[in-house]
This record gives sequence, C-alpha cells and structure tokens, in this order.
Amino acid sequence: MTRSILGIDADDTLWHNESIFQLTIERFIELLGNHAPSDHLTERLIATERKNLRLYGYGIKGFTLSMIETAVAVADEGLPPTVVQRILGLGREMLEHPVEPLPGVAETLGELKRAGHRLVVITKGDLLDQEQKLARSGLGDLFDAVEIVSEKTPEVYARIFGRFGAGEGEAVMIGNSAKSDILPALAAGQWGFHVPYHLTWEAEVAEVPADAPRYRRLSRFGEVPEHLAAIGWNAG
Amino acid sequence: MTRSILGIDADDTLWHNESIFQLTIERFIELLGNHAPSDHLTERLIATERKNLRLYGYGIKGFTLSMIETAVAVADEGLPPTVVQRILGLGREMLEHPVEPLPGVAETLGELKRAGHRLVVITKGDLLDQEQKLARSGLGDLFDAVEIVSEKTPEVYARIFGRFGAGEGEAVMIGNSAKSDILPALAAGQWGFHVPYHLTWEAEVAEVPADAPRYRRLSRFGEVPEHLAAIGWNAG
Repeated sequence: MTRSILGIDADDTLWHNESIFQLTIERFIELLGNHAPSDHLTERLIATERKNLRLYGYGIKGFTLSMIETAVAVADEGLPPTVVQRILGLGREMLEHPVEPLPGVAETLGELKRAGHRLVVITKGDLLDQEQKLARSGLGDLFDAVEIVSEKTPEVYARIFGRFGAGEGEAVMIGNSAKSDILPALAAGQWGFHVPYHLTWEAEVAEVPADAPRYRRLSRFGEVPEHLAAIGWNAG
Repeated sequence: MTRSILGIDADDTLWHNESIFQLTIERFIELLGNHAPSDHLTERLIATERKNLRLYGYGIKGFTLSMIETAVAVADEGLPPTVVQRILGLGREMLEHPVEPLPGVAETLGELKRAGHRLVVITKGDLLDQEQKLARSGLGDLFDAVEIVSEKTPEVYARIFGRFGAGEGEAVMIGNSAKSDILPALAAGQWGFHVPYHLTWEAEVAEVPADAPRYRRLSRFGEVPEHLAAIGWNAG
C-alpha cells in the first residue's frame, strides 16, 4: 500500500457540533417563549432551515438567519427587537464556542500520522468558521490538507481523492454521517468507516446497506487503526 | 513557457458585485428611514460589517446579519419585525441576483483557454454562494479549478499556485483588488495584473508601488492576452 489517504469529517467526528446546535435551539425556544406559542417551534425552525439550505448552504450564519426568520414569522408584530439582538448573540456564541476534540481523537490522529497515512479534513459548512474551528481545536497540524466543500457528493470525493492520486479502493472516508460521509464515498469506489455520533441532524439520517463490501461501522474514532489493519492497510 | 497558470478573482473581476452591495445599502437606508435617524447609517453599517468580519468572514450571509444588527442598534425599540423580514429579503435577493459577466470577460476567457493557459478562479466569500454564482455565470466550464478561500494572503497564493507546479514568476493573478489580488500575489513572487472596477469596497483599498516589477495595471479584462504576450507568455 503506497498510497493511503484518509478523508476525515470534522463536525461530530473530530469534535462536538450537533450538541451545540441542540443547546442553541433550546435557548431559542426559551427566548421566544413569552412572545409566541411554543408549540412546534423546533419543527418550524427546522422547516425554515431546510427551506433555506439551497440558498444559504450549511453553517452557523445561515442557521442564525433561519432563527431570525422563524422568530419574525411566529411572533409577528409581538417580536421585540431585543429578541432579535439576542438571537444574533446566540449565533455569535456558536461561532466562538470552544472546540474540544472528542475522546481519543487527538491520540488516534497522531498515531495515524506517525504510521504514514495522509490525513485530509473533508467538511461542509462556512469556510471561515470551519478553518477557525480546526485552528482552535489544536488538530490542524496533524492534517496534510483541508477541503471545505458545499456538498458531499460522489463527484466531490472522486475529485479530492483523485488529486492525491488515489485509485479505486485506495482511500477511506471516516465520519459520523451515513448520508454525507459514507454513502457518497462508497459510491465513489472508496471505503467508508462510519463512526456514529450520539445525535444526528435529521437532514443527515440515511441507511447504509449492511452488505456494502467497503463499509465498516466503528463504535468510536479510536478503532480506526485496527480497522485499517484489518483491511491490510499498514500505511506507506 | 510550459506552465502558465492564471489565477482570476471573481467578484468585480468576472462579474458585478460591489454595485449590488451598494444598491442593497441604498434600499436598507430607505427601509430604515422611517424608524431611525438616517444620519451616518451607511457608516454605521460599514462599521458593524468590519467589526464582524473576524467572525463572519466575507459574503452575503454575514452582510445580512450585519444589516439586521445595525437596524436593531439604530432603531432600538422602534423597529417593526416587518423591517427585519424585509432585510432578510434583501439578503436573499442578493444571493439570487442574476450573474452577468462583465463586458469582454467570456470572450477573453475563451481565448486564454484556447491558447492553453490554465485558469483558476481564486475568490473569497461564502462557499455555496460563490459556487452558485460561477454556475449561473455560465463561465464555470472555462476554468480548470475553483479555489474559494477565507482570506487572500501570500501563503494562500503560494499554496494554490504551488499545487499547480508553478515556481516563482510562473503564475499571474488577475483581479480588481490591489489589496487582495495584487499585493499578496506579488509578495508570493508572482505577477499581478490589476483590472480596477469602478467601485472599490473600502476594506479593499490599497496602494501598489508603481515600480513593482511584476505589476501591470490594465484598463479592462480584455487586455489580459496582450499583457501576457508582452511578458513573453504564449502559453503551453
């Protein structure tokens, strides 16, 4: 194995992300509690977010705009400007939230790098936000490249892995989302190592066929080296 | 010359951008006219935008959030939710605005491509928005690669041009911003072809030393081929 490229998702694979969105949604609901009926607030927010995805893409700035849009829609004329200000503050706090790697991630990345694997972050979201999170996480130096993409399709994986000279079956994508990390990487002819996170954003839910030959399901990130060894990858 | 890489900025180099921001600012001021003193509204918006740049980065989503923040700050309790809704609408219209290439751009890009130059878009801004603008412009197929970056520094240019195998003086960056397109490309040891746009966002104003040896100032994009010929680049 001379070429060993590991693509690694960031949010909820390297560090917590969905849990921060969930906490923010709780605070959003508290904030609107006095100004709007609280029924279905979460559903309305999620519906607004999905509607806007085509235009805003992934990330916190678009999510903040969707929170404001939902607040105006549900509270109507009863919405005090201070609530809008507080929502802007929620968005800013998300952007400045400390980034703490998930357990075992830093050690495992170090081990993979020392073994000679080339590591590439492949993530969706706001460009600047993802770069800053990687810097704040302290993990940036462990990676050979960072690819921030607007959507994770088989074509996107083919282009990125192709740039590193990986032929079919010569790259592994590691991530928590079956829909974004695993299925399109498998469709691009590569391996998919699925490391589920305890929360999954509704838009990322998908089923992987259990018999997909290059699919592995891991219970934590620390199992990556042993699964690589099991498929005969001892790096270059 | 076997290697000929042309990095090309997008906003206000390939298509209008700053003029759309300016029009939106005018509409923002009209919208707030009845709810806040209109003095210094533009200055306040620009100050908010600059303050948020570190956190939001470049692009329309961050600009929309800054418009909302400014509106809440100036109108205070007098801000009707409908105005917030209208500002969200202004942001959406910017994101959906038709993208029309500047005069001569499509023809010149075609000519450069036929001559064997490799063309790379290098642009700041929101990832999805910039990708969608390139697709809507109809110019996407003329480019060999698209690089959307959070900041244009000498290091970023060195990394991108280096990936295409360009040594010192083997790449040209073409763009309207002296600060983002020209100075850092020159600092990275490459050429800078400056094609000014009639409007320049205040944050992009900078002086280029007139005696910088690899600096050329063009009056329109259509002059790129003759300036390449003048420096002896007849492509590969």
